Amino acid sequence: MVKDLIAKPISEKIYKQIVTCIEENQAVLKLKMMIVGEDPASTFYVNNIKNNCRKLGIEVDTETLPVDVSQDELLNHINEANQDPSVTGIMVQKPLPKHICSNSVAAAIDPYKDVDGFNPKNLGELMIEIKSLRPSTAQAVREFIRYYEIELAGKHTVLCGRSNIVGKPLASMLIGKREPGNATLTVCHSKTGDISRFTKQADILITALGQPRFITADMIKEGVIIIDVGTNEVEENGKRKYVGDVDFEGCYEKAKAITPVPGGVGSVTTATLLRNIMKAYKMQNGLFDEI
Amino acid sequence: MVKDLIAKPISEKIYKQIVTCIEENQAVLKLKMMIVGEDPASTFYVNNIKNNCRKLGIEVDTETLPVDVSQDELLNHINEANQDPSVTGIMVQKPLPKHICSNSVAAAIDPYKDVDGFNPKNLGELMIEIKSLRPSTAQAVREFIRYYEIELAGKHTVLCGRSNIVGKPLASMLIGKREPGNATLTVCHSKTGDISRFTKQADILITALGQPRFITADMIKEGVIIIDVGTNEVEENGKRKYVGDVDFEGCYEKAKAITPVPGGVGSVTTATLLRNIMKAYKMQNGLFDEI
Repeated sequence: MVKDLIAKPISEKIYKQIVTCIEENQAVLKLKMMIVGEDPASTFYVNNIKNNCRKLGIEVDTETLPVDVSQDELLNHINEANQDPSVTGIMVQKPLPKHICSNSVAAAIDPYKDVDGFNPKNLGELMIEIKSLRPSTAQAVREFIRYYEIELAGKHTVLCGRSNIVGKPLASMLIGKREPGNATLTVCHSKTGDISRFTKQADILITALGQPRFITADMIKEGVIIIDVGTNEVEENGKRKYVGDVDFEGCYEKAKAITPVPGGVGSVTTATLLRNIMKAYKMQNGLFDEI
Repeated sequence: MVKDLIAKPISEKIYKQIVTCIEENQAVLKLKMMIVGEDPASTFYVNNIKNNCRKLGIEVDTETLPVDVSQDELLNHINEANQDPSVTGIMVQKPLPKHICSNSVAAAIDPYKDVDGFNPKNLGELMIEIKSLRPSTAQAVREFIRYYEIELAGKHTVLCGRSNIVGKPLASMLIGKREPGNATLTVCHSKTGDISRFTKQADILITALGQPRFITADMIKEGVIIIDVGTNEVEENGKRKYVGDVDFEGCYEKAKAITPVPGGVGSVTTATLLRNIMKAYKMQNGLFDEI
């Protein structure tokens, strides 16, 4: 097994799947992105998605609504996109202003166009392992497990984090019967107390805490495989940079394998998100054959 | 803390909630039960539900369909009940014949009438902790934790079992932020290998394996709190009886507290199922104020 679990071969494989699907079906895919207000970090992210879509031949239609748009008005826009047969996938960019309930937004998006996978119907189908659009970050973690042939059955996987966006859907998938699944899984979080008691036991450690370099070498055992979901912005020596939830340099020697940040889970997440547009297309056209 | 975690005070409390709701709202509740074919165990279970409903003043309308009914025909019956404003809750009795897909059945039931809580929308809402109808067994486990004031935060809870019906929804609830939640949770199952490595660590042990007396005294630590979801029929000395997944007699001394079988989780499950009819009524009438 290689030590550096890099994203590139996985992302490339996924992008190839998307391009092949578009070519084979002469598919016209369109992503509708709705943005509420102007947030510099969001703008950067949105442009990144747009560029990646362009490279793959996926059309992007961006709609920016004023920051004080009412929730009803936003839901009306979502409903229009639900009804519009030219729209394959819908994404509403986060963070949303406080007066808008993200759960209501997720529930309003047609489950078949829900490329974020946060509609309750999709999350419920994820839980019982039937085909659905799944949250891209959780799916990206599974792609690492699959690509680098990390065996979960009979090992102890420790997941730090229990957010609705990453931790909970990922936990549900990892304990499932579909490969990659069958994990004996411990979920830790802010209410765990001594988290190192559990991280030290991990054969596979997955971190989705949003805490820069929280996991240090003394908290892991020799030979652990680390998948770091965190992407935390820090300022060091006057420079901004992104680091994971794991102290990469400190843990590198002890780990059997580890994902870098950047160039790890985040990069594959962009790919799994875009693949959800392809999956949405397939589901809408009765072509979806994977779970 | 008492040692015997018995169902009775919990069930009584729940039945009282139901009666109070019916009285306060002068509510007319009707459960539609659909049964496919005739199965002696099912008949026993159905009669039990009927009797309990009668005591509480909940009307039950039972419809028995032939064992070779087509799935489409069953879905038509479900759809009729969905449309019927006199029907508060719908239950399709399991097990179903093999030619009928239980996921399709669950998906067909109106989420607001889905007293089993297996519709994907309800499972997804459970995952992200918004109000919904929840699977009654998983909810029953939470009622034990709540009633007997079992603190989960900072302790280690080990759950054996990962079924779609009990394990997965329960896992999702236990790691959530709503009380009773905040568990640091390890999920074990048939692919775990040495399950005792984990059960021995448990401060709280929850078993939903369907394996009679699988957990023996050597697999637990002194002072563990045990919640036994299993109800397994065994024949001993020519007599049929029900036992849990835990060897109750063997584990009793070491445990700090333990649920009996029968008279434990199973009894509260009947109560939480019937409470779902009340919750369905409240949701349909905009009265639902709990999560």
